[in-house]
Amino acid sequence: MTDTLRIRAGTVWLVGAGPGDPDLLTRKAEKLLNAATIVFYDALVSRAILALIPAHVRLVPVGKRSGRHSKDQGSINDLLVQAALAGGKVVRLKGGDPSIFGRSTEEMAELAKHDVPVHICPGITAASAAAASATISLTLRGLARKLTLVTAHARAGEKLDLDWEALADPKATLAIYMGKAAAREVSERLIAAGLSGHTPVMVAENVSLPEERLVHTRLDLLGLAAQSIGDGPALLLIGEATKPRTAAQPEQNIMTTRLIA
Amino acid sequence: MTDTLRIRAGTVWLVGAGPGDPDLLTRKAEKLLNAATIVFYDALVSRAILALIPAHVRLVPVGKRSGRHSKDQGSINDLLVQAALAGGKVVRLKGGDPSIFGRSTEEMAELAKHDVPVHICPGITAASAAAASATISLTLRGLARKLTLVTAHARAGEKLDLDWEALADPKATLAIYMGKAAAREVSERLIAAGLSGHTPVMVAENVSLPEERLVHTRLDLLGLAAQSIGDGPALLLIGEATKPRTAAQPEQNIMTTRLIA
Repeated sequence: MTDTLRIRAGTVWLVGAGPGDPDLLTRKAEKLLNAATIVFYDALVSRAILALIPAHVRLVPVGKRSGRHSKDQGSINDLLVQAALAGGKVVRLKGGDPSIFGRSTEEMAELAKHDVPVHICPGITAASAAAASATISLTLRGLARKLTLVTAHARAGEKLDLDWEALADPKATLAIYMGKAAAREVSERLIAAGLSGHTPVMVAENVSLPEERLVHTRLDLLGLAAQSIGDGPALLLIGEATKPRTAAQPEQNIMTTRLIA
Repeated sequence: MTDTLRIRAGTVWLVGAGPGDPDLLTRKAEKLLNAATIVFYDALVSRAILALIPAHVRLVPVGKRSGRHSKDQGSINDLLVQAALAGGKVVRLKGGDPSIFGRSTEEMAELAKHDVPVHICPGITAASAAAASATISLTLRGLARKLTLVTAHARAGEKLDLDWEALADPKATLAIYMGKAAAREVSERLIAAGLSGHTPVMVAENVSLPEERLVHTRLDLLGLAAQSIGDGPALLLIGEATKPRTAAQPEQNIMTTRLIA
């Protein structure tokens, strides 16, 4: 990779860091990180990715992570605007893909107000990475014709605002981002809306990282399965397509304990 | 990028090539292409990506593209099995992400039958790349809480088998892969199912390639807008989130002709 990519001074790039494995960065993201003068990064961006960024680049954590101390969105917006107006070559590095539950709109609107040009570099979203780790397809001819992505992250004190009837489709795959805390509610609501309790489910924690855990279970046992994983970011994948593949080789990284499978 | 990745002889990697721009390959995909002895690639994989593959690697086109001469799925399966059993380090390079409308399941099942180990390397899916090109987010707090991906590619002579009532959700973003030919039907069916004809739509052709075209229109004019684009692979993005952003800078690559906007 000898060719490089330049960032114009005073410009902001929203860059998808993908799920965590630095090898799942795009070539473009890597080039942008090399071209930046300052990088604002989320708590969900892995250390291994930060380690790729040249030492002369200023690194600023602006991490939002449920329940921990972090900057609010307004402060992040201000920091981005200031860095751009000061002539920085700014990268805003976000976990996953900036356009999928990345809250990019707020930042783009604020930057537009100050006439700061913005660009987006896409990233591998967690659902793609989890499917790759489990060696499954998220879509299946006839059985899973549709893939739906939602987030189960509600504002503090608010209930999940999801249309459970529409989500309880036996011919779809449902990916629920930030799904761990809501796992029991998801299970109860989808079953109440008519989805079979035997529907296969995969809980994927720390996707693509060395500490990745993939737990295969079924919808009626999802609440229990979610308790068995740790505090890392977790994705729920629900539907026939998520059934573990009868593989030629044993998948060492897939937990299938008797308790929850 | 000094570190490399090895492929065990007799193993197949299904690798996502992303939408076409070689910079939107992941670092992992690039490493796997360098480690392969043989690469079977789709018609949707761009020349610029093939140009990255070292000259000593055998390149085999197995391209499926609507209406053109191509190998059927059974022949592709056989080729993969033979190459692996002959001790090859096999990469099966697919446009987009192998787990999203990539028909990976058929190939994995056949390889498993012959005890050939399979792995997946994810790719940037077209919806992510199209959003990045248009500098929009596919999800918006309150307005677009859900992202749904379907394909409008039906088997010859078959009607589209989609649940239009469920898809006509004003608070969702709908991504329709391979959507050009079905654009008029999509427009009529979604409006009949209750979605407003004024719903913003983006038609994205040849996403991320030099010949990319992004056409912003509305649902009731979608049939007309789809006619205005070329023969490249096209994605339809439907919903409030797809409205063109009021950007600080003019987006040179976005067509907004009066005729269709």
